[in-house]
Amino acid sequence: MLKMAQILDRIKKIKELKALNYREKKILADEIRNKLLESVSKTGGHLASNLGVVELTIALHSVFDTPKDKIIWDVGHQTYVHKILTGRKDYMDTLRQLNGIAGFPKTSESEYDSFNTGHSSTSISVALGMSKARDLKGEDNNIIAVIGDGALTGGMAFEALNDTGASDTKMIVILNDNEMSISKNVGGISAILTKLRTRKIYTKSNRWIKQITLKIPFLGKFIIAIVRKIKDMIKQLIIPNMIFEDLGFKYLGPVDGHDIEGLEQILNKAKEMTGPVLIHAITKKGKGYLPAEQNPDKFHSTSKFDVRTGESLTKKCRDYSSVFGEKLVELAKKDKKVVAITAAMCDGTGLTKFKKKFPDRFFDVAIAEQHAMGLAAGLAKEGLKPVVSIYSSFYQRAYDQIIHDICIQKLPVVMCIDRAGIVGNDGETHQGIFDLSFLSIIPNITIMAPKDFHELEEMMELAINLNEPVVIRYPKGTQENIDCVQSSRLQKGKMEILKEGTDLSIIAIGKMVSKAVNVAKELEKEGIYAEVINARFLKPLDKDILKSIDKTGHAITIEDNVVKGGFGENVLELMNESNIDGKIKILGYPDKFIKHGSIDEIERIYGLDEQSIKRVCANLFCKN
Amino acid sequence: MLKMAQILDRIKKIKELKALNYREKKILADEIRNKLLESVSKTGGHLASNLGVVELTIALHSVFDTPKDKIIWDVGHQTYVHKILTGRKDYMDTLRQLNGIAGFPKTSESEYDSFNTGHSSTSISVALGMSKARDLKGEDNNIIAVIGDGALTGGMAFEALNDTGASDTKMIVILNDNEMSISKNVGGISAILTKLRTRKIYTKSNRWIKQITLKIPFLGKFIIAIVRKIKDMIKQLIIPNMIFEDLGFKYLGPVDGHDIEGLEQILNKAKEMTGPVLIHAITKKGKGYLPAEQNPDKFHSTSKFDVRTGESLTKKCRDYSSVFGEKLVELAKKDKKVVAITAAMCDGTGLTKFKKKFPDRFFDVAIAEQHAMGLAAGLAKEGLKPVVSIYSSFYQRAYDQIIHDICIQKLPVVMCIDRAGIVGNDGETHQGIFDLSFLSIIPNITIMAPKDFHELEEMMELAINLNEPVVIRYPKGTQENIDCVQSSRLQKGKMEILKEGTDLSIIAIGKMVSKAVNVAKELEKEGIYAEVINARFLKPLDKDILKSIDKTGHAITIEDNVVKGGFGENVLELMNESNIDGKIKILGYPDKFIKHGSIDEIERIYGLDEQSIKRVCANLFCKN
Repeated sequence: MLKMAQILDRIKKIKELKALNYREKKILADEIRNKLLESVSKTGGHLASNLGVVELTIALHSVFDTPKDKIIWDVGHQTYVHKILTGRKDYMDTLRQLNGIAGFPKTSESEYDSFNTGHSSTSISVALGMSKARDLKGEDNNIIAVIGDGALTGGMAFEALNDTGASDTKMIVILNDNEMSISKNVGGISAILTKLRTRKIYTKSNRWIKQITLKIPFLGKFIIAIVRKIKDMIKQLIIPNMIFEDLGFKYLGPVDGHDIEGLEQILNKAKEMTGPVLIHAITKKGKGYLPAEQNPDKFHSTSKFDVRTGESLTKKCRDYSSVFGEKLVELAKKDKKVVAITAAMCDGTGLTKFKKKFPDRFFDVAIAEQHAMGLAAGLAKEGLKPVVSIYSSFYQRAYDQIIHDICIQKLPVVMCIDRAGIVGNDGETHQGIFDLSFLSIIPNITIMAPKDFHELEEMMELAINLNEPVVIRYPKGTQENIDCVQSSRLQKGKMEILKEGTDLSIIAIGKMVSKAVNVAKELEKEGIYAEVINARFLKPLDKDILKSIDKTGHAITIEDNVVKGGFGENVLELMNESNIDGKIKILGYPDKFIKHGSIDEIERIYGLDEQSIKRVCANLFCKN
Repeated sequence: MLKMAQILDRIKKIKELKALNYREKKILADEIRNKLLESVSKTGGHLASNLGVVELTIALHSVFDTPKDKIIWDVGHQTYVHKILTGRKDYMDTLRQLNGIAGFPKTSESEYDSFNTGHSSTSISVALGMSKARDLKGEDNNIIAVIGDGALTGGMAFEALNDTGASDTKMIVILNDNEMSISKNVGGISAILTKLRTRKIYTKSNRWIKQITLKIPFLGKFIIAIVRKIKDMIKQLIIPNMIFEDLGFKYLGPVDGHDIEGLEQILNKAKEMTGPVLIHAITKKGKGYLPAEQNPDKFHSTSKFDVRTGESLTKKCRDYSSVFGEKLVELAKKDKKVVAITAAMCDGTGLTKFKKKFPDRFFDVAIAEQHAMGLAAGLAKEGLKPVVSIYSSFYQRAYDQIIHDICIQKLPVVMCIDRAGIVGNDGETHQGIFDLSFLSIIPNITIMAPKDFHELEEMMELAINLNEPVVIRYPKGTQENIDCVQSSRLQKGKMEILKEGTDLSIIAIGKMVSKAVNVAKELEKEGIYAEVINARFLKPLDKDILKSIDKTGHAITIEDNVVKGGFGENVLELMNESNIDGKIKILGYPDKFIKHGSIDEIERIYGLDEQSIKRVCANLFCKN
């Protein structure tokens, strides 16, 4: 099924791409699609968005003089084609793997990657900065931001459009309009883009006026002159590109994003223009691969799959997101006040069932984390019980709103943090290892993390009845089995002792609790009796933890978060305030950004696998 | 000069306001302006914005049934009129004072304050949340967000417009367009609003077409029919309300925001409409008080002043912001790569001189902190040296960008944090007491805080040459004199010992260093010899601090930040990692939001004045 890639294999440098004619480029596009399918079906990754930008990427590298001209890819998960064309074709099998190439642009990987991205809606700001720098340095290279329609809903993109439009800086924004973000696009801007896509109807109506008018004897031409004047006004003002033109951009398009020749023409035109230009390209997510065209959501980010059928090769396990989603449906059935909010992560956070069941009580605000929190605050102020679910690293986008709109007024918003801790293959930008730290410093907030699915359910139940801001954080993927009995009912601010011991205290939170239990069992074989504490709450932190430390005289904390400001340091602070002497060993991630790799690999590298933890415990407690 | 407030004094309840006729309301507006001048000239506060919304506030409370109908005031510093009309007239002398009424809406203060605000651009999100809650509860009250044109540039406002426009929820947004935010407004949206304000020209051009066309014999009427058809299209599509209409709002206006009758008419109209409505009201900042009309920037936030002349009664001292501004001009003269960025805080951050001197190298991005960071990242990536200056509490808005766009790539952006620590009278939303905590957990970042003006200058010089992300945080206002000699040149990651001692170590950072020096002097009188350390850097933290702690055996840390995750806890963590035993006493702000009051008062309340610190030191070190 997979053909030889005769043209693709010939292209070693971008200048060889430029030398191709359109017929060859079209063949190249097919070959790239095959290459994408071949590699992503093995490594997993973002497929649909890459299939959608094959022609656009070819056209960009054909028209522009990269890497001197800079392309900033918003979000950046659509850069596989770009990577294939810029010297990384033969590394595609290592995509997103430990020590392999990243799933996002990385300046450290190639000079063709002009800026690191990962989160949405940043590209226009960055491109404006680069354009201003170019102007100040008196240089003349091109700066191009490529942004999807989904990313356009993020406030940062609008802030940047607003600022760029008011400047006279030469810069190109390519709106890659595939009519959806991660989930289906939402919001007013979406309606505007729909109008833009159908702008040909305006041309038609003008033609209709002309036809009628010409039938009028004598004065026909005069009328046409008036109509033309009006048409100019219409052209300038009526057509709905106005939102961009009004903001100060010159609007070009819409253009078929799969027509390389058309794309090159419009890109060449933009290159000659001054000031900020916006090119509106219409693309199809998943283009050229039927299973992805039909189900772009599923192929947005995929695990390994069978190219022939499109079927996943990884068994879908019940994961924290689905447990969250099911439990929320149950809670919402019992309590009419429960409503759900997400920010373009409906499927990913497990909310699809809730959305179907309670469409009126479900709010997908698009990629707009700040607004999600403001909306939640308003709902909570008026007596409802909003439950927000967003990925950990995207909560960083809503930090001020959590402080300013939710916590100062102590509003009962339940903030569920999905993908907390190490997420693995998406790498630095997506690791959720800061949330315990940046959230625990906020007053009026309760923070908990479940050790398993069942505890997540209990925590959700508790949270919606606490009547205050609550955070529940849980990891990507499935639970690790914990072979021990829950010792006590969940109560706010109370830890549980899972195993009594005398020699040292292992205090863990969230997914690390299972490791603590397993390590304690191993230690027991060597005659070391560890007490295992499931902290459950980072805030308020249970002072009874100190009793255990006082008893055993040795303590180790384990968390799936950076050490700085995290769970362990909160325990240390509690010790410092109290009369408990001694040191504790804090296990967590160091003060650095963690690159991509599998979760297991990363845990091993940073000493957070069971073997490493056991070693630390044994060292801490030298029996002799 | 100040007249009797005959009508104002009669109004005890909102229903008495409703009973007034327009003539009386006009007089009331004058009386309110006098009241504002009388009280704000004594207490200080936000004057110009309040003078601008006198009529709007009267009209809102006349038309709507508050507090059942909810008004959400964006930013909220323009709520003095609202406070005067809702039972707080007699407390205006306590405005922004300790235990007095707040300068922002507070739900704890009055049932008429339906939501706490303080930061910009939140009101539409909150109003949408409240409207959705109302719909779900089956109620029918009105929800009104009042937002300035400046606040509209904040990404969160756009995210909310986008989401609200796509919904069919009944809700009113009042765009209070005074043609400026804190500083002069900037950006494309500003140009759109200017067009909207002058939309009458479109009517005129249509009339012109009609006049010409009517002169054409026979067919004139037919032509007019065509023109009318086109005019309808124009009406629907040309006029630049399109940006709001396209997003899904019904647009009403523009309306003169100082014409109570006109305002009431349009508000009543909006009340009857379904779905989201946007009312565009044109107001004048400082309206009715000439010094403020002529200089709205100066009277945006003012200290005590002479009502007759408009002259400030507080002597303007050299402050950290002006030292920063002057030094940056000096650095920029020497190094062409230095550029400056702020987010609608040009005057406040001391950048006015820089802006005049280097207009091409100065970027005011409007209220858009996220974009400010993206822009800085782009500039830095291309070899420039961007220096950002934003107030501490607004950095919370750019948290993800600092992590994702700047620190992951280790880009050399210098982030100057003005108004760090307690700011005093603006209260909870503006206290800059979290920055040390939320920034110190980010990898690849250097964080410093100067003890005085001179050290700020040195730190700036160091920062622009470090070639990495750097934070310099400094407080509002002037330096406290430090009576001691600087002991060593500033070096990355190095503290300085300001006074040697044997009995205890006082380790302070930033503005708290002067207190440490003074306390040490006082302690010496009692025979306690304290070593005083100016930490200079929170990150990297100088390990030599431990030597002092090891030597004296007693340590106290002092910072103008919350204890949680702050400087002291970083010292504690360092001790835990090393072999230094013992406890330290960490002085800083507790885990709660700090209300308004003067800086001195707040420091006394929380034990951060010199007397309290001395007491803690003396207790810590009991000589006998």
